[in-house]
Amino acid sequence: MSKIILAVNAGSSSVKVSVYSAEKGQSPTQLAQAQVSGLTAPPATLRYERGNETVIEKQEVDDKVNGQRDAFSHILDTLVGDHDLPNIKNKDDIGIICHRIVHGGDYAKPQLISDGTMHHLEDLNDLAPLHNANSLGIVHLCIQELPAARNVACFDSQFHSTIPEHIRTYPINQDIARKNRLRKYGFHGISYSFITRATAGFLGKKPDDLTIIALHLGSGASVCAIRGGKSWDTSMGLTPLAGLPGATRSGSVDPSLVFHYASDVGRLSPASTKELHISRAKEILNKEAGWKALTGTTNFGAIAAAKGSTTSNDNDEDKKKMRLAFDLFVDRICGFVGSYFVKLRGQVDALVFAGGIGEKSDLLRAAVVEQVKCLGFALDDEANKAKIEAVVQDVGKEGVLPKVLVCQTDEQFEMARTCAESEEFW
Amino acid sequence: MSKIILAVNAGSSSVKVSVYSAEKGQSPTQLAQAQVSGLTAPPATLRYERGNETVIEKQEVDDKVNGQRDAFSHILDTLVGDHDLPNIKNKDDIGIICHRIVHGGDYAKPQLISDGTMHHLEDLNDLAPLHNANSLGIVHLCIQELPAARNVACFDSQFHSTIPEHIRTYPINQDIARKNRLRKYGFHGISYSFITRATAGFLGKKPDDLTIIALHLGSGASVCAIRGGKSWDTSMGLTPLAGLPGATRSGSVDPSLVFHYASDVGRLSPASTKELHISRAKEILNKEAGWKALTGTTNFGAIAAAKGSTTSNDNDEDKKKMRLAFDLFVDRICGFVGSYFVKLRGQVDALVFAGGIGEKSDLLRAAVVEQVKCLGFALDDEANKAKIEAVVQDVGKEGVLPKVLVCQTDEQFEMARTCAESEEFW
Repeated sequence: MSKIILAVNAGSSSVKVSVYSAEKGQSPTQLAQAQVSGLTAPPATLRYERGNETVIEKQEVDDKVNGQRDAFSHILDTLVGDHDLPNIKNKDDIGIICHRIVHGGDYAKPQLISDGTMHHLEDLNDLAPLHNANSLGIVHLCIQELPAARNVACFDSQFHSTIPEHIRTYPINQDIARKNRLRKYGFHGISYSFITRATAGFLGKKPDDLTIIALHLGSGASVCAIRGGKSWDTSMGLTPLAGLPGATRSGSVDPSLVFHYASDVGRLSPASTKELHISRAKEILNKEAGWKALTGTTNFGAIAAAKGSTTSNDNDEDKKKMRLAFDLFVDRICGFVGSYFVKLRGQVDALVFAGGIGEKSDLLRAAVVEQVKCLGFALDDEANKAKIEAVVQDVGKEGVLPKVLVCQTDEQFEMARTCAESEEFW
Repeated sequence: MSKIILAVNAGSSSVKVSVYSAEKGQSPTQLAQAQVSGLTAPPATLRYERGNETVIEKQEVDDKVNGQRDAFSHILDTLVGDHDLPNIKNKDDIGIICHRIVHGGDYAKPQLISDGTMHHLEDLNDLAPLHNANSLGIVHLCIQELPAARNVACFDSQFHSTIPEHIRTYPINQDIARKNRLRKYGFHGISYSFITRATAGFLGKKPDDLTIIALHLGSGASVCAIRGGKSWDTSMGLTPLAGLPGATRSGSVDPSLVFHYASDVGRLSPASTKELHISRAKEILNKEAGWKALTGTTNFGAIAAAKGSTTSNDNDEDKKKMRLAFDLFVDRICGFVGSYFVKLRGQVDALVFAGGIGEKSDLLRAAVVEQVKCLGFALDDEANKAKIEAVVQDVGKEGVLPKVLVCQTDEQFEMARTCAESEEFW
């Protein structure tokens, strides 16, 4: 029996939905993909592709869309309204909807969501109000408006449930830690799961035999030490704030820094609602930091280009700021690569770049690999500059181990695959 | 001309004073050493040594001593009252008093303190109220009661003034960072300065040619990447909280963790005074965390012993907790060793253990070196278990580079040496 699976990925400023057709237990086939982006940087726009055809390239949707829930509704209408997508004639044709939920607490596996289990997910919201709320709004809408579909929560933290106790534990009062569920969870796990499977396939290894350092570098950025196909350590922590800086995130800073940044950072931010309690501190560190704070732009491509260009306006203040942001990011990434190389006891098959920046910025890859060459990594300059077209592409110097790879990660596919392969969700 | 130099080292629960005789520009000679310890774990006790003789082994001084300032007064009386220490017949015989001040802000060198410059030091207190206040109380007392002496502030942060901009910068709003002086400062610098000089001497190198990873592991613990004799990076940050865990310190944790630990952590702790503003958050992370929170003891020796023993009571709950604390500490240390190995581009002369735990715990050293052997480090088991008697002692496997060394660091000596060698303080 074939089913239509929607994979929904709600980020802080975008909603992506991929449509798959799947047989139980088999790898799904993508039919279409739609995305509303620019939710926090208007105008919001819709892009819609069916098969290899771009049906809508960039349509302003500001009048119809206010927030993630609206964006999902609009995408759903687009899919149902597309007469050239015969697999979805009406909403009831959708069999499974899998939702990327950032924080899954102790869940080590995807969960079928019902009215009865929804409150478990809402509990998790306490741990990550900034990150889970967008997705939960869409889950609510699906339960109400698509009663024929089964909803599955796929957690960004679940891949990291294998992190050993001495690594995931924070050295704090353990009674309070247990009560308040304070430990390292880690995120980007759906992506790391995809990367693990794809890299193992590329190297001709079983996932259980694969040991890699994976870099998911996007506007949110993290590193994962993957040992025998399983997460051994990762740079994010209790929340996605810890570890590497991101577009608007500070990453790890002295935990007392925020108390020197502004007064009364423990009070609720004006952006809080009755359901959503966000302290001013979290807002500062998650939304007002990162390379945006250093340079004024969230566009890492521009930052890398400023670093790469040395021809004109070399003393331009803006360029100086961008170079500082670039060097800072490379420094923090290389620190984690060294750290995880040791944690993996030096037995590393590959360093794998993924995520928007990891896949697109050959300048960043070149700077990182240059700094970690003492661990044996080496780039092939030509291969590194070539267009990345394969799911996994080798950019390392020929014959050198460990390898350096680029992986075009696909969180929606990974969610759909997991659902298609899990009998319980059918 | 010979002068008497006192070097004063006020910690959170102890005050150590070493007495030196020095000629200008020459290395000082130690005459005596006194220490009051147990200030936060009564009874407070005095230990006093003159030359090689232990004059007072352990004298309870609770009735005379309430806090660091009292402890210093009591030590001063002990020195002046000791007729067998002819160099100090009265207080006026003391020429220079150098004070270890944890947070020195932007100061890259020791500073002569006068009534007029004291307010600069008090300004720094805002950055590190938990850490500077004890020392400043003693500085005040010296200015008042020892008018003939010159007071010199030696900063734990000054050694790290060489950390490059892209490493010391936090990715946050830089206007606020400049205004509130928010950057990585680093600490334990007096110790790292001693370690650098001693290790360079041991290896027959100029300090400027020395590149090492130094571990200062005590109840406060940090790591420093030293490149060409200068600090390139270190694990502590804006305050000593960041980086490795300590006896009661969490080290780096998700910066949003404390907001999940307790409510209203931004409010002032009941321990605050009019002069001293300490948030509840800083108190939790600095005073109620670390291996004390995991195990109930601040005694790392007991924790290492529990890890080392596998014979009896193997499932004892307390031992499990201690093993977790040990494994956690080793994991975090090894992460930094890997990180700094990369930041030093693999060109490392030695891994150097120092501080109470680094010097005493062969079990910790063995566990760390075992985990970082993929970087080329190797211990000599016999040498590692031998008593550490030299200032720098080789515990690495013969012929293996980089070396593994133990350095008996001496912050008081380093301060006295700096003062003796600096014409401006005479």
